[in-house]
Amino acid sequence: MLSKNKIKFFNSIKKKKYRDINQCFFAEGEKLVDELLNSDLKIIEIYATSEWINLNEQQITKRNADVIEISENELNKISSLTTPNKVIVIAKQTCFDFNINEISKELNIFLENINDPGNLGTIIRIADWFGIENIFCSKESVDMYNPKVVQASMGAIYRTKIHYVDSVKFLTDIKSLENFNIYGTFLEGNNIYKEDLDKNGLIIMGSESHGISNTISSFINKKLFIPNYPIMKKTSESLNISTATSIVCSEFRRRIS
Amino acid sequence: MLSKNKIKFFNSIKKKKYRDINQCFFAEGEKLVDELLNSDLKIIEIYATSEWINLNEQQITKRNADVIEISENELNKISSLTTPNKVIVIAKQTCFDFNINEISKELNIFLENINDPGNLGTIIRIADWFGIENIFCSKESVDMYNPKVVQASMGAIYRTKIHYVDSVKFLTDIKSLENFNIYGTFLEGNNIYKEDLDKNGLIIMGSESHGISNTISSFINKKLFIPNYPIMKKTSESLNISTATSIVCSEFRRRIS
Repeated sequence: MLSKNKIKFFNSIKKKKYRDINQCFFAEGEKLVDELLNSDLKIIEIYATSEWINLNEQQITKRNADVIEISENELNKISSLTTPNKVIVIAKQTCFDFNINEISKELNIFLENINDPGNLGTIIRIADWFGIENIFCSKESVDMYNPKVVQASMGAIYRTKIHYVDSVKFLTDIKSLENFNIYGTFLEGNNIYKEDLDKNGLIIMGSESHGISNTISSFINKKLFIPNYPIMKKTSESLNISTATSIVCSEFRRRIS
Repeated sequence: MLSKNKIKFFNSIKKKKYRDINQCFFAEGEKLVDELLNSDLKIIEIYATSEWINLNEQQITKRNADVIEISENELNKISSLTTPNKVIVIAKQTCFDFNINEISKELNIFLENINDPGNLGTIIRIADWFGIENIFCSKESVDMYNPKVVQASMGAIYRTKIHYVDSVKFLTDIKSLENFNIYGTFLEGNNIYKEDLDKNGLIIMGSESHGISNTISSFINKKLFIPNYPIMKKTSESLNISTATSIVCSEFRRRIS
């Protein structure tokens, strides 16, 4: 049974402010919940239909979490999906530290003012696929616990470390590292297919509407370009941010695969 | 001024059925409309605020289109955007023929039952960037003139040819071509970075939820795989369809760029 207060609570944590106050977020649907229960994240409560509960007794016992049985009708009231899917889990937000020396040995992503939750979720999924563990976002970026981010990440959000940082301070620290390149894509950059790309480094991607700002651009020492084809034809002005990120990450990993 | 009938008409063409009956679609916002007015497509009517009309007199005269001045308030009533943006244009749908011999010399994409309009729009933008002129969709796929497809394509939809085909009939014809490979991505496919990829061919991408079906898979003679990294770690199960399409198209074009 779902109390009026609980419905109110669910609606409140659709907003970042209340997710932060309660240090929690939620994931919905069989696939996302299955991955969540198999992750290291702390589970607060599971709201599920009797059908889901019967099929997942083992997992519930393993996680020792509170389970509240609800009807399809009650699920509809708290879900943020068009087609609610059997189960919603509230989990605890996690906050990761990072060590600049460890970062220096890895490939990392920095997102400047990413705005669209679908794009952030997709980029988290790309990073996870390509073994990029740390994603840095400028403080103005969309919240990683936005339900649409969680959904689009398809569970990758439980395996990657996402840090919200003061852009200039973070990039100033990173810039001082030795043998560490900072990359970004620009229309006037070098052909990415022919450029030397290291195993480690930082890939900067700009916002959907404004690209990489001049301030952030000044930290970049390797400008890359994804060539369009054929060069002479009028094509789209740009690729969208998650498309460009996937091609750039793929190129970095191709060199060492 | 906007009549009640016109508002009703705009709401009707948000649905495929009425777009098809009227053989039209609409595009919204300054950027998309600018690209539309510069395309070869036939413009039916322009609905715009006085601000937009004043700034675009030259383009309006050039296209010799009917312009209806509307208020911001009226725009809100017909727009399908959360933040309506100055102008909506109704244009005529186009239908392209294709010649199997011309197709045989080019790189093409086939989408099996693509469902999400954002994904289709993004893939059209990717195809346009990489000079892939023809996209084939199974008949069950989302409509190319869905407002979200038009929006996500960012104008690329005006430059690519999208064909809705009977999958088995089309692929049977294609399969008979000489020196023409049919590619698809599979978890058990060959490392795409190391595989021979031709200048021409057909790239098949499966639906978001079911991937490539057995029926369609039987036409594919080159199975590809985008390697995750590092190979041993548990990562996401898959990439989303537009992410995978961008990496595959980039790999094909890298070989000839």
